[in-house]
Amino acid sequence: MLLKVKSLRLSTGRPVAILHEKTAKALSIYVGERIRIRNKQDIIAIVDLAKGILKENEIALSSEVLKALNISEGHAVTVSAVPPPKTTSFILKKLHGEELNYDEIFMLVRDIVSNSLTEAELAYFISGVYINGMSDMEIADLTKSMVAFGKELRIKNTVYDKHSIGGIAGNRTTPLIVSICSAVGIIIPKTSSKAITSAAGTADVIETFSKVEFNIDEIKKIIRKANACMVWGGALGLAPADDKIIQVERILSLDPEAQLIASILAKKLAVQAKGVLLDIPYGKSAKVKTKQEAIKLARRFQKIAKILKLKLETVVTDGSQPIGNGIGPVLEAKDILKVLRREKSRPLDLERKALYLSSLLLKMAGKKNAEKLAEEILKSGKAYQQFKKIIESQKGTLKNIDKKLQPAKLSFPVNSEKSGKIKEIDNKKIAAVARAAGCPADKSAGIYLNVHVNDKISKNQPLMIIYAETPDKLKFAKETYNRLKPVSY
Amino acid sequence: MLLKVKSLRLSTGRPVAILHEKTAKALSIYVGERIRIRNKQDIIAIVDLAKGILKENEIALSSEVLKALNISEGHAVTVSAVPPPKTTSFILKKLHGEELNYDEIFMLVRDIVSNSLTEAELAYFISGVYINGMSDMEIADLTKSMVAFGKELRIKNTVYDKHSIGGIAGNRTTPLIVSICSAVGIIIPKTSSKAITSAAGTADVIETFSKVEFNIDEIKKIIRKANACMVWGGALGLAPADDKIIQVERILSLDPEAQLIASILAKKLAVQAKGVLLDIPYGKSAKVKTKQEAIKLARRFQKIAKILKLKLETVVTDGSQPIGNGIGPVLEAKDILKVLRREKSRPLDLERKALYLSSLLLKMAGKKNAEKLAEEILKSGKAYQQFKKIIESQKGTLKNIDKKLQPAKLSFPVNSEKSGKIKEIDNKKIAAVARAAGCPADKSAGIYLNVHVNDKISKNQPLMIIYAETPDKLKFAKETYNRLKPVSY
Repeated sequence: MLLKVKSLRLSTGRPVAILHEKTAKALSIYVGERIRIRNKQDIIAIVDLAKGILKENEIALSSEVLKALNISEGHAVTVSAVPPPKTTSFILKKLHGEELNYDEIFMLVRDIVSNSLTEAELAYFISGVYINGMSDMEIADLTKSMVAFGKELRIKNTVYDKHSIGGIAGNRTTPLIVSICSAVGIIIPKTSSKAITSAAGTADVIETFSKVEFNIDEIKKIIRKANACMVWGGALGLAPADDKIIQVERILSLDPEAQLIASILAKKLAVQAKGVLLDIPYGKSAKVKTKQEAIKLARRFQKIAKILKLKLETVVTDGSQPIGNGIGPVLEAKDILKVLRREKSRPLDLERKALYLSSLLLKMAGKKNAEKLAEEILKSGKAYQQFKKIIESQKGTLKNIDKKLQPAKLSFPVNSEKSGKIKEIDNKKIAAVARAAGCPADKSAGIYLNVHVNDKISKNQPLMIIYAETPDKLKFAKETYNRLKPVSY
Repeated sequence: MLLKVKSLRLSTGRPVAILHEKTAKALSIYVGERIRIRNKQDIIAIVDLAKGILKENEIALSSEVLKALNISEGHAVTVSAVPPPKTTSFILKKLHGEELNYDEIFMLVRDIVSNSLTEAELAYFISGVYINGMSDMEIADLTKSMVAFGKELRIKNTVYDKHSIGGIAGNRTTPLIVSICSAVGIIIPKTSSKAITSAAGTADVIETFSKVEFNIDEIKKIIRKANACMVWGGALGLAPADDKIIQVERILSLDPEAQLIASILAKKLAVQAKGVLLDIPYGKSAKVKTKQEAIKLARRFQKIAKILKLKLETVVTDGSQPIGNGIGPVLEAKDILKVLRREKSRPLDLERKALYLSSLLLKMAGKKNAEKLAEEILKSGKAYQQFKKIIESQKGTLKNIDKKLQPAKLSFPVNSEKSGKIKEIDNKKIAAVARAAGCPADKSAGIYLNVHVNDKISKNQPLMIIYAETPDKLKFAKETYNRLKPVSY
């Protein structure tokens, strides 16, 4: 059936088409069912019905559909009914705990990318994966399929990459490692995420210095200039299936191991990394609770990377407390600058970890005396110069940066109620306080930590300063602090 | 925030509200998030965003919202952001296999009924129940909660009810049992379903005689006149949570045991049945595969009924093949009339089963010599008169009924390819053929079975006749028959 497009300038978060009731009846389509809409490309959309706003020969399309088909009001599109996809039977298999083969996973990922599966169908799939798990081969197949339906970032030179599975407040090693390693010619096309449940993602932090949203061609240009980039991976479409799965996982904050592994490895395959360094922090309030679990997860990553013929080095690190002093985009950016400039007040734990991981990545890329080399690059200021180069290639500047990087104006010092020794600083609780203060949207909000685990403290000593942009948020952050008590001593 | 209602005459299958982008921003609401809309009552709706079709002080509401709030264009409503409901954490618990307590289940059901949970969240809940199961106490709590949020059908007299868990083609005992038992004064407020995956539900069959859709007050009037009713339960709202759960289960054709039990018992509690007879057929192609499983399920029903203080009698019956000869609304209706009129060509297996179950229900209601009584009621024509009375109370008639109940004009006899003995007739495959022929929407379509298991047959003997309303459907039914081969001999 040929219908005329009407734009209601309607944004629905997923492809939606509105049909006149009579038109839907003629197509034997009910509310909530699927249609295929064809212009040059085609897309599958969920149907709503209307009477008043449409003629029978019209179809109203949400902005998501118009964008995907690159059409606008007045265009003609062909519309046909789409039966529930065959892949729902594979989802049922997964719910039953059966193993899926490559073809089945490939078709599932294809249907996820083409929006042929509804959110509820995806939730069923994720439940099956969450409860029943996936075999190593299934995860490798999922990774491959995700890459197959995504864009690739092809760079002529050999590239390296690093990744942390996250969960540690303040742990902003990426800008340091990328700067140190790319300073000696290692190519690192680093894509990062924005915060979902944390106070800041690497992309949120870099955004305080420069732009982070670029298309593939722009990224290639940045890398040609600076050997490396530090951009937001979210809009690049390296693994679009992953983005859609994560959207549905977020509903219940699920993060099944199989999906975690596939998600990370897919993005590394998409940039054609020759070698990847993976940081798995462990600790009571980290994603991975114990060293044993971290080693187990590392081994699983290794096995799957081997199937995928990806050179992967894993390192399990101490994630028992936040790393660095700043938590929140601006406060973490300040920590990074301090380390790069070797300022006296720089957070030594962050510097130490960044140097260690840098040395591993340098070694992986064939550099000798990697530990000494990493230190030399940082001490000499080469890392700072390299950081500057990347930021400038990303249309940013370090000019007047200290004036620009100001914590929020409102602040509140949290003082100790008694003397003692710091026993624990909970990553998740600290993140919750920083988010209550406005992170990550309010870039200057956050926390500056004055203490770390094992520090001796006296009564009324400042443990941290909370920063917020509005009195409401500062109050909310204080309340959250008092409720959660992130620091034990 | 106070907004003016605009009606787009938009039907979305779930409550949807469209806000102007700027309004949403002011409320800190993103696409896909939830708002509470308040007039006198309130309802929760999912948000879409628009620019062109709305002013900033307007809100467009889907017909589902307008109906629920009983408002129209121009009304003012109060709108506020709603955080994800607390019950998502209970869903997570269920995914982890933990047991939920009454309060948690009660809140979940409340949120399901108020549309506070999205389809994806419901899919997560169903997955948890499907994979991890529910304890007896959880199922009882689920049943109670479903009833608590539904309408009740309160009748002064003591009422009885019967139910079959279904899955057997042609098995239309309900109209016979209801007629026989209510003929001697037993009150049976029978609500039935329409076919979802079968060729016909009891409501589809009764609809060939009379109306089946009534509201609670109308049903009370029917029962006052005729002691019993045979109506469609779908629109009554006895257990609205159940309807919403089933809607999401249908996506993958899931039917977790916990939900099956709660669904049945909730509807029996809602009509305040004093005693309930439950038929559990078993067989290779039935819902329950073996007698052992049927007995196990019966025991589970008993245990949960005991917690709910519901008097329940279970009976496990032979479900190894279709019961009766007709399959499809009109063809099953003809079988029922034949039994009620004691015609020579009546299906004796259907009669036998109906008499047996009737005797059990009569006994349950305190009647003596129940087996003889049931037979006497049927033989004497009292059951037929009682059936007529119910149909007439439901605004139907048996006048000219034989002329009205004609199978579809196009037909195709399936003949045996060799001589032998009928080994098996598969319920699911037979239903698939009947559905291919047009059931349940085409009421006169379906199958007339000429043989049953253990019948001896010669070559070229007619096994069944397939009826369809159009050549296409007849062809599709034949193809389906040839692909599935429902009869083994």
